[in-house]
Amino acid sequence: MLKPVRIALDAMGGDFGPEVLLPGAARALEQGESIAFSLFGDEKRIRPYLEANPALAAVSTLHHTDVAVRMDDKPSQALRAGRRNSSMWLAIEAVKKNQADIAVSAGNTGALMAMAKTCLHTMPHVERPALAAIWPTVRGRTIVLDVGASIGADARHLVNLAIMGSAMARIVFAVDRPTVGLLNIGSEEMKGIEEVKKASRLLREAALPNLQYVGFVEGGDIGKGTVDVVVTEGFTGNIALKTAEGTANQMAQYLREALSGDLMSKLGYLLARKGFAALKQKMDPRNVNGGVFLGLDGVVIKSHGHSDVFGTAVAIEIAYTIARHELLGRIRDAIALSYDANPAPAKLGVSGEPAAAPSQS
Amino acid sequence: MLKPVRIALDAMGGDFGPEVLLPGAARALEQGESIAFSLFGDEKRIRPYLEANPALAAVSTLHHTDVAVRMDDKPSQALRAGRRNSSMWLAIEAVKKNQADIAVSAGNTGALMAMAKTCLHTMPHVERPALAAIWPTVRGRTIVLDVGASIGADARHLVNLAIMGSAMARIVFAVDRPTVGLLNIGSEEMKGIEEVKKASRLLREAALPNLQYVGFVEGGDIGKGTVDVVVTEGFTGNIALKTAEGTANQMAQYLREALSGDLMSKLGYLLARKGFAALKQKMDPRNVNGGVFLGLDGVVIKSHGHSDVFGTAVAIEIAYTIARHELLGRIRDAIALSYDANPAPAKLGVSGEPAAAPSQS
Repeated sequence: MLKPVRIALDAMGGDFGPEVLLPGAARALEQGESIAFSLFGDEKRIRPYLEANPALAAVSTLHHTDVAVRMDDKPSQALRAGRRNSSMWLAIEAVKKNQADIAVSAGNTGALMAMAKTCLHTMPHVERPALAAIWPTVRGRTIVLDVGASIGADARHLVNLAIMGSAMARIVFAVDRPTVGLLNIGSEEMKGIEEVKKASRLLREAALPNLQYVGFVEGGDIGKGTVDVVVTEGFTGNIALKTAEGTANQMAQYLREALSGDLMSKLGYLLARKGFAALKQKMDPRNVNGGVFLGLDGVVIKSHGHSDVFGTAVAIEIAYTIARHELLGRIRDAIALSYDANPAPAKLGVSGEPAAAPSQS
Repeated sequence: MLKPVRIALDAMGGDFGPEVLLPGAARALEQGESIAFSLFGDEKRIRPYLEANPALAAVSTLHHTDVAVRMDDKPSQALRAGRRNSSMWLAIEAVKKNQADIAVSAGNTGALMAMAKTCLHTMPHVERPALAAIWPTVRGRTIVLDVGASIGADARHLVNLAIMGSAMARIVFAVDRPTVGLLNIGSEEMKGIEEVKKASRLLREAALPNLQYVGFVEGGDIGKGTVDVVVTEGFTGNIALKTAEGTANQMAQYLREALSGDLMSKLGYLLARKGFAALKQKMDPRNVNGGVFLGLDGVVIKSHGHSDVFGTAVAIEIAYTIARHELLGRIRDAIALSYDANPAPAKLGVSGEPAAAPSQS
């Protein structure tokens, strides 16, 4: 039997806390995977769920703490009040202390990011962490990163994002050499940000073994599923993600209005309910719940604050898969390889032009 | 009777050229507005449409040229080959020479932007032009700018975008004091780009008479119609626009698949066809066809390259409305006012912190 994956769960995070997170953990466990949970939070609120679910209790260790980061705490407040003793911090720290393989929290993103950075630190050659999202597309799913962990990115950071996103795609999509695109605003002259163009040259020249760089992609390519991994800096990535969610909601509202306008449309809606159920399933954001913080010496999964039991289970399953296939080690190796394979520091270094093709511009 | 609005039409632009643009012009004319067209392009291809449509011919002057910018010309190529003699250039130049009030082209965006900049130049206090898009929302429409005319923006340019977008919103939406939001990635500490935060302070302090600044908005607010005008720099704006279009296409494809899956769903679709027709109408991108280049000494409208007759007519009607209500003059006045009202150059100047509240950070 496989050694269980040790998941540290911040049982107090999110809009609903233990009332949703514990049943979510139980549901993930029911999928048959081998998991051991470390649960951090208020014993009084957690205990009843363990008593009601012996299977969950059997694989769980409960670590009591009174302190919980609130959903509206600013990152600095959260760090001031919850460093070392909040359920969020303790879950992350369990990863640092190698008492857990991965941490999951539905707590507020800014606080989670700040605590993860403070506790885990970035890995060698990575300056800043990134948040990777799994994005539903017409062809399946695409990983988009960074969707908001940091703002702005130089060329080398964009290359790191490509490497980290590809390592995740290899595991989550089970593809050997994921395709990678750099988000840009078209291939016309004078378009694009200098660092994006430079990252493109670096990725072409590096010809990394574990990813297939295909060039620039545009905003419309994300939903098409043109590539497995879309790379962009965090400001643009976050706005793209929120804009897409907003557009999906907008379309759903148009559809509801259109089908409640006249009697025949209402009747048609009833007849087509099987089709609409399939549509609803496809548009269900819970299917892709679980943002992944990458680039730190330990992986932290962010479950959506509004997540219900099903969504929580999905985030925990993603955590399981990622930890089972040792994403962290793979990223470390791939980042190191990208340097080792290019001993000339200028080639993939942060500063300067690529050494290989100085005449390109 | 109102003096006609003089519209210069690049009759060769777009994927279809005169075959779509001339019927589009005729259709716009049929709406009853008082328009005079200057048509630029190949006489042989344009003439038949004028002969077939005496009403259009009666208000049109034809200016022959053999030269047309191709849809795949790079901006530099277009300028080299088509400066001074292409249908695109001549249409823009007609605005410069005050032979037309506004220009419309369906030609390639990069070339159009380059020619418009070269020919018209930017207006006082505006460093770079912007492309404004009209974005359908659940509450109506929102103007989003910049959607790709220039990359990056300092705080003062973002303020100019707010002013220009508001002037356009006053005309197109017929509202007195449009609401304006700055696109950002949330209000958490440490989030957002420095220049966006600074622009927010400038807009609050300036308290401009013709717009109502409401603060930061996120990607999801665009489709909700939270504000009349969303301001962002061109890279992010373009990616948001393309991502939204991509998501709308993705949802439409999901819907098609869902309603062709089983017989009952197909039948339901047939019954609900009135509802679906309403949905299709609502999602029809032709309704909002017409990007507006702002910030130059003359206004140029970009019709979508794929536009059909209906879409072309919409772009021409937007051009008519904008020119009829003298957008250019309003923008000039509003920009000047934003400086005059704040004689201390630091307050709304490009450099330095706002003078009024140095203690804010």
